[in-house]
Amino acid sequence: MQDWAGRIRGGERLAIARAATAIENRTPEAEPLLKALFPHTGRATVIGITGPPGAGKSTLVDQLAAQLRARGKRIAIIAVDPSSPFSGGALLGDRIRMQRHHSDEGVFIRSMATRGQMGGLARGTLEMALLMDAAGKEVILVETVGAGQDEVDIARLADVTAVLLAPGMGDDVQAVKAGIMEIADVFVINKADQPGVARLEQDLRAMLSLAPQGKAEAPIVMTVASEGSGVEDALSAILAVRGRKSRDEAGLWKMRLRQMLLDRLIERLPDEELGTAAARVAGREQDPYTALDQLLRRWFGYTG
Amino acid sequence: MQDWAGRIRGGERLAIARAATAIENRTPEAEPLLKALFPHTGRATVIGITGPPGAGKSTLVDQLAAQLRARGKRIAIIAVDPSSPFSGGALLGDRIRMQRHHSDEGVFIRSMATRGQMGGLARGTLEMALLMDAAGKEVILVETVGAGQDEVDIARLADVTAVLLAPGMGDDVQAVKAGIMEIADVFVINKADQPGVARLEQDLRAMLSLAPQGKAEAPIVMTVASEGSGVEDALSAILAVRGRKSRDEAGLWKMRLRQMLLDRLIERLPDEELGTAAARVAGREQDPYTALDQLLRRWFGYTG
Repeated sequence: MQDWAGRIRGGERLAIARAATAIENRTPEAEPLLKALFPHTGRATVIGITGPPGAGKSTLVDQLAAQLRARGKRIAIIAVDPSSPFSGGALLGDRIRMQRHHSDEGVFIRSMATRGQMGGLARGTLEMALLMDAAGKEVILVETVGAGQDEVDIARLADVTAVLLAPGMGDDVQAVKAGIMEIADVFVINKADQPGVARLEQDLRAMLSLAPQGKAEAPIVMTVASEGSGVEDALSAILAVRGRKSRDEAGLWKMRLRQMLLDRLIERLPDEELGTAAARVAGREQDPYTALDQLLRRWFGYTG
Repeated sequence: MQDWAGRIRGGERLAIARAATAIENRTPEAEPLLKALFPHTGRATVIGITGPPGAGKSTLVDQLAAQLRARGKRIAIIAVDPSSPFSGGALLGDRIRMQRHHSDEGVFIRSMATRGQMGGLARGTLEMALLMDAAGKEVILVETVGAGQDEVDIARLADVTAVLLAPGMGDDVQAVKAGIMEIADVFVINKADQPGVARLEQDLRAMLSLAPQGKAEAPIVMTVASEGSGVEDALSAILAVRGRKSRDEAGLWKMRLRQMLLDRLIERLPDEELGTAAARVAGREQDPYTALDQLLRRWFGYTG
């Protein structure tokens, strides 16, 4: 284990890849390995990239990766995909557009599937980021598809969260934007060569002007990621936030520990007993609140 | 309490509205009220409508509501919005397009804000549906914006889940579709008068053909909800599934009880102790796994 951890810290690709697989498959080795690596984490900058489907996240991540490489940074890309229930794995694989980075030793790319369980962002995403951090990656880009829970989760993970928007995404974008307002450190308006950009920026500024202190200053950057334009500005804006933001590591870890605790508690709920209670409730023999009180008393020794 | 419950069961609008507010604000009255109402639930058909932003969910729900009213059904509409962190309430309010149903006594409309907490779908959504069920609503339409966790949650709530798609939503829709494949009973392709419909249908059928048994038969219905066309077919397809589906009430309640248990456990985690542990982890004095083991042992009396 110590040898494996040492090779990871030395940046050995194969050792890192094996660890990534152990984390994703939750093998028994994963936890002791992460325990050994943990003291060597806390140095990387984790950048979360999120936004509604179709905004161009993969393209932007690809371009940010190229920029970071040009600046000589060792980086990792973690692409979180919704699980395909049919293939069981990450649907988009390592993503076509990322291919050009695959032969670059300075870039480690990993796709992860969310498991459709509690917490949209894969439970292992935090562990994957810790692994990359221990392996000496200086910047970790975490891309997540989604418009709901994932975005709350990414704020729990990332040092800086960039929210990507694009013009012409329909009525509901209004609603989506609201859900992610809270977590955005930087806004990137992508596809800035398309109609509706001025309107989108105006809407965004209007929303931000209603924000409590601080949020109003979240910068808005325009990009056409498919052509690479504006990407350098976007990266600079992101890194500037990182420099400015006083990092509340303890606050972050509080949220993370809470999530990890819940994951463990879920695993331990006695399935059979839960099933018996559910059958009683379904038959209207007992209401769900009474059933809950009984289960809590029996399993955790306290009353409702 | 019994009197209030009686008035709700009699369909009194004011009593229902007061209960809905109690549920949303989690006042102490909510739980005893729901206990009293619970034996009178289990009759309504709950239809979940979900899909990516911009697909036209609100418009379809509005049209389905009109169809159901034309068939003489008493209905409720629960629109789940991402919380606006600024206003603190449901962003879209009761939604402009729903206005025409507001004066109709047979329709009860309620918007709910998701709280950005665990579980994208508002914790209270199940309770709201139980309330409407006890109040004698025959069909409950639950609309949710989102493309991630919400969709898993809606499958936990609804008898039939309709997934709405629309052509021209960008690359990532591929990924979004995968996440919701598992829960769809009916697919509705909206905006069927726009380019790209044939392609979308073809992609969808290709994905379904890879599905394990059962899923391949999920019907696909075309609509142009803004003009009302195809809506009657969509409703018929949804209700046909409801008739065919053998309802695993006990299985549903098992998922729901698990979620409710977790909600309670979250509330009870001693915040201060968690904060102390988080500070140790953030300072790299302790790894998160050791911290978790200690917390689990102290709080719940068992070992890691």
